[in-house]
Amino acid sequence: MSEGIRTNVSEERLRNDIRKNAEYGALTVEEGNSRTTLTGTKANEEARTYLVEQLEQAGLDVRIDAVGNIAGRWVPEGVDRDTPAVATGSHLDSVPEGGIFDGVLGVYGGLEAVRALQAADLDLRRPIEVVCFTEEEGVRFSDGVLGSSVASGQRSVEDALALEDDDGVTLEEALIDTGYRGEGRIDAGEWDSWLELHVEQSERLEDGNTPVGVVTSITGTIRCLIEIVGEADHSGSTAMHDRKDALAAASEVVLEVEAKTNDVVAENGDTVVGTVGKLDIAPNATNVVPGRVDLGVDVRDIDYGSMERIVGHIQGYLSALEDERGVVTTFERPYDIEPIDMADRCTAAIRDAAARSEVDSLEMHSGAGHDTMHIAKVTDAGMLFAPSRGGASHSPLEWTDWSDCGAATAVLGTALAELAAE
Amino acid sequence: MSEGIRTNVSEERLRNDIRKNAEYGALTVEEGNSRTTLTGTKANEEARTYLVEQLEQAGLDVRIDAVGNIAGRWVPEGVDRDTPAVATGSHLDSVPEGGIFDGVLGVYGGLEAVRALQAADLDLRRPIEVVCFTEEEGVRFSDGVLGSSVASGQRSVEDALALEDDDGVTLEEALIDTGYRGEGRIDAGEWDSWLELHVEQSERLEDGNTPVGVVTSITGTIRCLIEIVGEADHSGSTAMHDRKDALAAASEVVLEVEAKTNDVVAENGDTVVGTVGKLDIAPNATNVVPGRVDLGVDVRDIDYGSMERIVGHIQGYLSALEDERGVVTTFERPYDIEPIDMADRCTAAIRDAAARSEVDSLEMHSGAGHDTMHIAKVTDAGMLFAPSRGGASHSPLEWTDWSDCGAATAVLGTALAELAAE
Repeated sequence: MSEGIRTNVSEERLRNDIRKNAEYGALTVEEGNSRTTLTGTKANEEARTYLVEQLEQAGLDVRIDAVGNIAGRWVPEGVDRDTPAVATGSHLDSVPEGGIFDGVLGVYGGLEAVRALQAADLDLRRPIEVVCFTEEEGVRFSDGVLGSSVASGQRSVEDALALEDDDGVTLEEALIDTGYRGEGRIDAGEWDSWLELHVEQSERLEDGNTPVGVVTSITGTIRCLIEIVGEADHSGSTAMHDRKDALAAASEVVLEVEAKTNDVVAENGDTVVGTVGKLDIAPNATNVVPGRVDLGVDVRDIDYGSMERIVGHIQGYLSALEDERGVVTTFERPYDIEPIDMADRCTAAIRDAAARSEVDSLEMHSGAGHDTMHIAKVTDAGMLFAPSRGGASHSPLEWTDWSDCGAATAVLGTALAELAAE
Repeated sequence: MSEGIRTNVSEERLRNDIRKNAEYGALTVEEGNSRTTLTGTKANEEARTYLVEQLEQAGLDVRIDAVGNIAGRWVPEGVDRDTPAVATGSHLDSVPEGGIFDGVLGVYGGLEAVRALQAADLDLRRPIEVVCFTEEEGVRFSDGVLGSSVASGQRSVEDALALEDDDGVTLEEALIDTGYRGEGRIDAGEWDSWLELHVEQSERLEDGNTPVGVVTSITGTIRCLIEIVGEADHSGSTAMHDRKDALAAASEVVLEVEAKTNDVVAENGDTVVGTVGKLDIAPNATNVVPGRVDLGVDVRDIDYGSMERIVGHIQGYLSALEDERGVVTTFERPYDIEPIDMADRCTAAIRDAAARSEVDSLEMHSGAGHDTMHIAKVTDAGMLFAPSRGGASHSPLEWTDWSDCGAATAVLGTALAELAAE
């Protein structure tokens, strides 16, 4: 079975789709390939429209739900179209100045896998659905994995549609504006199972010269927003002992997040990461003692207890900082997703498919969050990774060799067929 | 003489001008009064236009030079208009989210002093000029004191006009756009003398319950630009030991500037200050390990040797940071002004004027830099301060009681008259 699928996967067709998608929101960069494709923009509309055309050309029956999630269903001959489907896919939105593979490989790899399955002579018992979720990156309206949060029932359609961007435009307005405010809700709970192909965004596959990663779990993510309020003062006329410097206080927090995370790494191993990636300073002028700093902290691990330890430590540290520096701090925790394991039958299907395709694979956890985090709560889910050159991602340097894209797509196709044959 | 001037100073007229100026670039804030009036913006254009109207209404002869410096000359009856003038003034641009007195009191206090002198029956021998310098704060195009650097011949008109903001707009384009690209150069070297009234931006006058500060020297300022280049990576999929986090490295620099400055304070007293007020982070997203940070460092003292010690220490610290964290740093020192003493005859004129007005005064250094630093290099210069409530400045909480504004303006007027009578 696998041999037929591998032969039928067209690396060229897949490359053409990914290249074409890269034109929507394309940026000129010195090195690499880049695009900015935020949810509900013109670039996002064009990317969606191209996808819908390709799904329809392949004979898939396309639905668009109220939050803009897109699903194309292939019903193999002799299969009842209402049988719970095996679904696969990812997302087409990007971060600002993002790469061209993140999310895209999963959507077009899914479609190419279906095209390969259509050409193979297989006895399948379930429909296969190719899915594109709205706003996985979470740049414009949300903290991310938005479409899958709705499809998995974690968030209501109404709540999602009411989300606003920085200019006060709602998701609903942006979707109506671009023609992708559909009806109803694509319900992941109705799927038999789910597989997502994604670029690794790390270097483990490249280092091990391994074309496919079998994801066993996805790390949880806690994001914290910390505000530190000191006193903005003139940098020349305010004596050192009269200052409440919000940036000096914030710098201590940055280093404490790093130090505490390293402590936990030393005890529990290097799956845990803690980052301050974002700092907004007011007024941010060389001649003013900073009066206010907002920090964005991101803590992840496959062990939720370790994440809690770091976050709890930082909260306690803020109290000490208030006493020591006379600043006032606030702490919010708006985003909190626990680590989740992949379903055994899905990881087994991917592992077996790799073996049958004679492709080496490596079991690993995902340090990045994905739509699969949400989907895994309501159906059996699995993920597979393709190698990222140098681990680069969310960057114009993001790259996966076309042969690796093709190999991973063939493994995806074989795994989908196995699940759909059950 | 002084009695007449004091009677003629209208606190109400001065307050009206300062209040009116506060409307240009006004911000809504929770507490206090705030404006953002950057050079060459619409708000700055409106503020300049209101000033020119007031100068002309008072019968002053207005010139605008090539870099947008504005000077209004009052020629008392019987005085040759080409006699070297006694000049006074300050600036109307602000820092982002600045207060409403910084610079503004010196410009409108200067104008109000002239209006009071016009109404008094005095035997003056020199013209008096009221001046507004371009971009004292140095937020948009420069490191600050830009207009006075040109007026004092420290910088050429051509160099100044070619300066660009972050969007590549030149000072010349912004001045043309707002109608304040005049001709020629206002030459401070032609002035007989110069006095600048300014808010103190510190608490010494308030603490001493003293309405006027007589400035004896202005601290020097060294500004450094430090760039730290690490590696931008996905915050979830990059292990702690694989990171080159530019923000963690920058946080160490922020804290080292603070610690080293505190060391020098402990040895030499609290005239020395060291600040990191500005940090620009790329890409500045919660889910990306920061790849690059630019820091703006500001070091000041009345002792140049102490400044050099701090800056030298930070340079050495950067090398250690490169070894320790694998980041690459660059160090620039684009702004370097030594401390400067005020001219004896100008401080004497202010001291005498305060005494004659029966106003207490206190001798002090200025921790903040001012246009007077440049002007003092080419003519006799002096400065006087009005109290700042709580020392707040470069902040919406900046406040000087209207009665203190009036008292300082009366002292300024008397001192100007004394210099103009010589």
